[in-house]
Amino acid sequence: MIRYIELRSRARTEFIDITDEIREVLRLANIRNGVCHLFVLHTTAGIIVNEGADPAVQMDINGFLNKLVPKDHYFTHAEGNSDAHIKSALVGTNQTLLVENGKLLLGTWQSVYFCEFDGPRPRRVAVKILPDE
Amino acid sequence: MIRYIELRSRARTEFIDITDEIREVLRLANIRNGVCHLFVLHTTAGIIVNEGADPAVQMDINGFLNKLVPKDHYFTHAEGNSDAHIKSALVGTNQTLLVENGKLLLGTWQSVYFCEFDGPRPRRVAVKILPDE
Amino acid sequence: MIRYIELRSRARTEFIDITDEIREVLRLANIRNGVCHLFVLHTTAGIIVNEGADPAVQMDINGFLNKLVPKDHYFTHAEGNSDAHIKSALVGTNQTLLVENGKLLLGTWQSVYFCEFDGPRPRRVAVKILPDE
Repeated sequence: MIRYIELRSRARTEFIDITDEIREVLRLANIRNGVCHLFVLHTTAGIIVNEGADPAVQMDINGFLNKLVPKDHYFTHAEGNSDAHIKSALVGTNQTLLVENGKLLLGTWQSVYFCEFDGPRPRRVAVKILPDE
Repeated sequence: MIRYIELRSRARTEFIDITDEIREVLRLANIRNGVCHLFVLHTTAGIIVNEGADPAVQMDINGFLNKLVPKDHYFTHAEGNSDAHIKSALVGTNQTLLVENGKLLLGTWQSVYFCEFDGPRPRRVAVKILPDE
Repeated sequence: MIRYIELRSRARTEFIDITDEIREVLRLANIRNGVCHLFVLHTTAGIIVNEGADPAVQMDINGFLNKLVPKDHYFTHAEGNSDAHIKSALVGTNQTLLVENGKLLLGTWQSVYFCEFDGPRPRRVAVKILPDE
């Protein structure tokens, strides 16, 4: 079964910590061991696993991507958001997490972030949790 | 069981929509719910999920990557395709899609693209579809 | 069951071939067909599948990433390793490999690399091998 995490971004580019939302889906799935597939259903957004302890890290990643892929670069696509499509291609739209003893297996500093590259918008992340055997 | 999508790229760098080919593999697998793993068997190519509606988007992503990772940058590797290896590392060589009610779960604007970074060449993408239960 | 590959990087940035270590985990799992999920438990490292034949390729990818994301760029995060977090977001922290007839399905030139972006450090990669049905 697929569940959805519903989000509402507040800025054009923004990283939103969705680790707690994923944990809630996992709690409802009530499995012991397995995998958790996350899939972003948009073409101008992404998903990463990175540091959750210091918010400055997400600001640095987001800020650097804004510099690396400038919004005002010349692009063919007429909607003015080609930068967002490029960032999405670079960071990716899916993640596979492992589940062990009923918990997400994450390193000490790891959280899961939805990456908004063309907000503000309502957004959805599909979550599919598969138990072992 | 693993099936293969066989491609033939026509340019040095090119994004090829393989969504229909993946759907055909899914149709043959005849499953209702599950996951679909895609794996590119090459080191100078990649795979992304991004906009399929306006072809200008793929041209913008491809064009920007060509600027970001210039072919004529100084590299150690003697084959002259280090730019292609770097792009492959950045966009990645695998994707995991979700399958629901016999269909690929994709957002309204999402298609799956094979990314050629060192063509023209014959290429292969491995597809493994796993049903739930 | 999840197993761990333990590594010790020797430089600040370094790509370490872990294909043999993954094959050893696969041998112990003793499965015929399935998938192999790899997950890096750190926020300043990544994992890629790329060329293993010529070591110059890994040097070129690593060297280019060092230029693309300079360590001495101005960042907010006070630990001086924001470049490493950004590279981790770009290359990603997980891979899903396919297993066929007891072997990793890899292209002729493909190897799996752990990407150290803030070493030297001890590191861990989680490996979960799932047999079909």
